[in-house]
Amino acid sequence: MSMNHASVHPAEDAPTGGGGIAPREWMKDIEGMPATIGGLVLRSCQLIAAAISLSIMATTSDFSSVTAFCYLVAASGLQGIWSTFMALIDIYALLVKRSLQNQRMVMLFTFGDGITSNLTFAAVCASAGITVFIDNDLGRCSINHCYQFQSATALAFICWFFALPSYLLNLWSLASQ
Amino acid sequence: MSMNHASVHPAEDAPTGGGGIAPREWMKDIEGMPATIGGLVLRSCQLIAAAISLSIMATTSDFSSVTAFCYLVAASGLQGIWSTFMALIDIYALLVKRSLQNQRMVMLFTFGDGITSNLTFAAVCASAGITVFIDNDLGRCSINHCYQFQSATALAFICWFFALPSYLLNLWSLASQ
Repeated sequence: MSMNHASVHPAEDAPTGGGGIAPREWMKDIEGMPATIGGLVLRSCQLIAAAISLSIMATTSDFSSVTAFCYLVAASGLQGIWSTFMALIDIYALLVKRSLQNQRMVMLFTFGDGITSNLTFAAVCASAGITVFIDNDLGRCSINHCYQFQSATALAFICWFFALPSYLLNLWSLASQ
Repeated sequence: MSMNHASVHPAEDAPTGGGGIAPREWMKDIEGMPATIGGLVLRSCQLIAAAISLSIMATTSDFSSVTAFCYLVAASGLQGIWSTFMALIDIYALLVKRSLQNQRMVMLFTFGDGITSNLTFAAVCASAGITVFIDNDLGRCSINHCYQFQSATALAFICWFFALPSYLLNLWSLASQ
């Protein structure tokens, strides 16, 4: 059965399966899933947003004094690494024209996307809470790097915004096996 | 077809459907889904955690000076209202022994759970960022209601922790239609 094949198998093998009991069909590759152009675009956007967010945060000298900003840097870094890894897999799958609709692979992608996107979202919320606290509640934006902090947080949010479709599409694909 | 029935229909009608083309089967009611004892327990836990979080936050006089804590109160309140509403639906469905595995109903529950649980999670992360900032980074816990803020945030996190299975089970059920 197709479940026992190697992780990367030809696209035309996936939908059909022999045997008396017809296996449930896998979801067709729709744009945004791994091994599609849409998926690669999503990964590239995540990577670019995470890289810009990290760069902006690195321009401030005092981000390390706030735990939430350190967490944002760590989460953006992890998201960037994961997105790079996934983009490379997408490029490989596109070049050799293979589908990645394999149960174990989809489970791995869903797990990884779930962990990284949730960590990024949590870091964005914590950082946003701090920037609003410094700006609106304390009114001390003039003596802090508020604009850099806000920009880095916004870019990390955009990164999460591009990571969410990847996660939901993988989860949907896994659920509809 | 079962899709055109009233929103609440007998459990025994759901899996089977006549006609030439067999409709895809709905996921069986598993514990934690709406109209199950497990689902009702989850809703009750969400409601209790949200209510305790709100009560603890209400004992502090100055939570309204921090935007993130106001947001936590609003999100916990919304989660509490949604959980109460869903608990009442669960009680009704259990009393009349009906299933809620109807496409529109599951879509509504998934949408509602998605909105409320994500809002709660965002509020928890923002509040946690502030409490860590006040406690660890500024070291001003002695002149603030740190313990109350931390307890309210922890309770809201527990509330989200119980809301997540409800959301994921509904999403899974919707995806496996």
